[in-house]
Amino acid sequence: MTLPSSTENANADGMPAPLPPAKDMTALLSRAARNRNPSPLKSLIKYMVYPDMISLGAGLPHSSTFPLVQLSAVVRDNLETTNQADATYTSLSVMPGPFDMTSAAPPPLDSVLQYGNGRGIPSVRAFFTEEIRRLHQPRYADWDVVATCGNTDGFLKAVMLFCDAGDAVAVEEWCYPAALETMRPLGIVPLPVAMDSEGMLPDALRDMVLQRSQDRPLRVVYLVPTGQNPTGSSMSVERRRAIYAVAQELNLILIEDDPYYHLQFPDGEPDQLLPSLLSMDTDGRVIRLETFAKVLAPGLRLGWLTAPAKLVQLVQYHNEVSTQQPSGVSQAIAAHLLLKDWGQAGWQRHLTGLRTDYRRKRDLMQAVCQRELTGLCEWTLPQAGMFFWFKLNVPKALRAEAGYMQRIFECCIDKRVLLVPGWQFAVFTPEEETTLSEAEKSDRAPCLRAAFSFESADKVEQAIVRLAQVLRSFKCGTE
Amino acid sequence: MTLPSSTENANADGMPAPLPPAKDMTALLSRAARNRNPSPLKSLIKYMVYPDMISLGAGLPHSSTFPLVQLSAVVRDNLETTNQADATYTSLSVMPGPFDMTSAAPPPLDSVLQYGNGRGIPSVRAFFTEEIRRLHQPRYADWDVVATCGNTDGFLKAVMLFCDAGDAVAVEEWCYPAALETMRPLGIVPLPVAMDSEGMLPDALRDMVLQRSQDRPLRVVYLVPTGQNPTGSSMSVERRRAIYAVAQELNLILIEDDPYYHLQFPDGEPDQLLPSLLSMDTDGRVIRLETFAKVLAPGLRLGWLTAPAKLVQLVQYHNEVSTQQPSGVSQAIAAHLLLKDWGQAGWQRHLTGLRTDYRRKRDLMQAVCQRELTGLCEWTLPQAGMFFWFKLNVPKALRAEAGYMQRIFECCIDKRVLLVPGWQFAVFTPEEETTLSEAEKSDRAPCLRAAFSFESADKVEQAIVRLAQVLRSFKCGTE
Repeated sequence: MTLPSSTENANADGMPAPLPPAKDMTALLSRAARNRNPSPLKSLIKYMVYPDMISLGAGLPHSSTFPLVQLSAVVRDNLETTNQADATYTSLSVMPGPFDMTSAAPPPLDSVLQYGNGRGIPSVRAFFTEEIRRLHQPRYADWDVVATCGNTDGFLKAVMLFCDAGDAVAVEEWCYPAALETMRPLGIVPLPVAMDSEGMLPDALRDMVLQRSQDRPLRVVYLVPTGQNPTGSSMSVERRRAIYAVAQELNLILIEDDPYYHLQFPDGEPDQLLPSLLSMDTDGRVIRLETFAKVLAPGLRLGWLTAPAKLVQLVQYHNEVSTQQPSGVSQAIAAHLLLKDWGQAGWQRHLTGLRTDYRRKRDLMQAVCQRELTGLCEWTLPQAGMFFWFKLNVPKALRAEAGYMQRIFECCIDKRVLLVPGWQFAVFTPEEETTLSEAEKSDRAPCLRAAFSFESADKVEQAIVRLAQVLRSFKCGTE
Repeated sequence: MTLPSSTENANADGMPAPLPPAKDMTALLSRAARNRNPSPLKSLIKYMVYPDMISLGAGLPHSSTFPLVQLSAVVRDNLETTNQADATYTSLSVMPGPFDMTSAAPPPLDSVLQYGNGRGIPSVRAFFTEEIRRLHQPRYADWDVVATCGNTDGFLKAVMLFCDAGDAVAVEEWCYPAALETMRPLGIVPLPVAMDSEGMLPDALRDMVLQRSQDRPLRVVYLVPTGQNPTGSSMSVERRRAIYAVAQELNLILIEDDPYYHLQFPDGEPDQLLPSLLSMDTDGRVIRLETFAKVLAPGLRLGWLTAPAKLVQLVQYHNEVSTQQPSGVSQAIAAHLLLKDWGQAGWQRHLTGLRTDYRRKRDLMQAVCQRELTGLCEWTLPQAGMFFWFKLNVPKALRAEAGYMQRIFECCIDKRVLLVPGWQFAVFTPEEETTLSEAEKSDRAPCLRAAFSFESADKVEQAIVRLAQVLRSFKCGTE
């Protein structure tokens, strides 16, 4: 595999026409990003082009001091089968070989055990690049990818590109809490934008941005467009286009956090995936975050960030002085599996198996919920991801009793069913954080999040039966 | 192996006396650290104590969706032998097994492939804890360890515990550049403290701290005490005690970055390691950073941070919203190797082999340097690490020619020998950064760093011969 060219698309004559470059987003950069420099020691690498150069420059341990001399893994090919007897397996081995940070072939052991270059191992980047080209076909020329330690790491680095202390970020009104806790210690203020079942409302986003003072404009929007956490909603194609149009109109950066992209199970075409915001991006204003967490394993801590090359370079500089790069062992396993031992065919078979598995679990959850929860709460059938979001039909009398959501949650615990209470995903303004009581905060969010990814079918059924008992005991759905 | 108790030491009667707790360092915390909170979703874990609880809470993929079903490695036991025929090998295998985040046994595959807890896998933490207890015997009760993605990650998190934009950190006058580039984008100002061959000078540190204004006091000192990068110097026991005394006197935090701790090769007792600053710390003011980068492999991206438990908890919160934890695959390899397949005996044999290997390379470099460079430059024989630091004997006439160090460096490149020029390690004040020219900056640092860790013996010899030719051509050592 070679790094693909992304500078071509077809014009009206069917001839390849060059894509335009990304727009210059320099004016939006944070102070921290403007002050990022390459690691000084890495600037010496350019002198290594001379074949007769002897380097006493790099403070690297020699690979002869690395005790690992072979790394192997056994991988199950076919998740879609539940019959253990049908399982087939692939083996991969990472063997010793000379250090090489230029080859796009799956790396030898010496390359993955040594220090890297802040971008990820070339073969892993080649895989990421090919995935982006194949699935998202970016519409500007100078896009690039950089390895991250997963989307939590990627989000931190994306938000630090554009935000200093005191800046604000527009987020979905029900928001992934780790994103909020990433921003708050840095003094970055998340501001909630209203959603409907198709995600963030474009007009609400526009209104919020226009209300901000011009000396501290809002520059960044954080979105989970597919199988959103916690609501399970997926933005429709039209909604994505409308949000992108607002971003163009008001010169906003969109951070597209898309860990559930491959866990889509739409009605109709089973393998028809929604177009990403990146795929609509003609300007280079989308920072796309992807991860192997939900499609290979979270413990690999391996993901990638796609953006204009100038921004990717700043993320590389940030990597050099933080994580350096993801674990070489994780990268080696991904590279050998996806580029060699499985290849595209094995990868696609695996993804199809995953989608089949998640769809089955989603359908099972839906059947139980329709039987047990109809009338007690409302929900939208998720078309992606791993979450149902129950909006409780709270009776009027209960709504007057402050702290009722805390009591519903505690009653769930007593009944031995754990769901995540809605208030954990609520985004309060800095003023609300200090003025509202815990009871008031909880009552603002009469919702519960249920994951259908982890527990077995019979446990999911029992859990929903218990939840229904709790909601009935609070007279949900009456009046 | 169980997590050791660290609450006891022996008093004068030989009876165990309880150690005091760490002093409260809350007043020194940064705004960011004060605003760190636990990941909200992880606060639900406490409800999982009920055996009959069914959780739809955690948004985790089920381990049946992880394609990896076995992970194996082959490890070479005896680095000290250069004879391939003498090599012996150990194999390790990580097999499937139920998710368990409480056991201190080497983890099954399901545990390392799943999301972790921000602290590292229990067995890996148990190893770190035992190493700290055995080698450093902390002198306060409530110390703790947390896994990092290596010391670059650890340093970022340590400095962010105490420093906001505008704060200053005292550093060695010749300083590891990645540490400087970690701080500068965050608006944290490194201030150089004079060194001699035993490292940072305590009186110079005291003077600098006392000169700072009281509304923005200097609170943090960054040190590489053993085999310092770039000077190769190791702080003597007395120097360590003196620096710690200044830290106590002026209420400073010491960040002890010690990646070369195990690469010591002192004269006399070969395995007598210098006492760490942590081992002298009665107050809980030392943040100790260690890594497997130089003793197993950099590509594992696995290290650990030791500090009072309250500070470790804040680093855990920081992990939860950045790296989450090091790669589970890296952690699994370390845990199985060090706790099971090698155990302590294999680990000690490996470390002895490493020290033997580095000592041989150091001695070879020293012999060549004594033959070729005597008179041309000065250096101190390093007792640890991987670096020689050459202070050039620049003739008086050359010193008057601005930019001479740049010309010496370029001449080295022409002769095809790469060393790191001293200016890459120089710490300029913010004012100097803007007022000094590149030539002036380079001439402030008439030094070159040479690593003896990476190239083969004959290449090291050739490199030093070439360097000597360059230095003679500039008439170094004359006048």
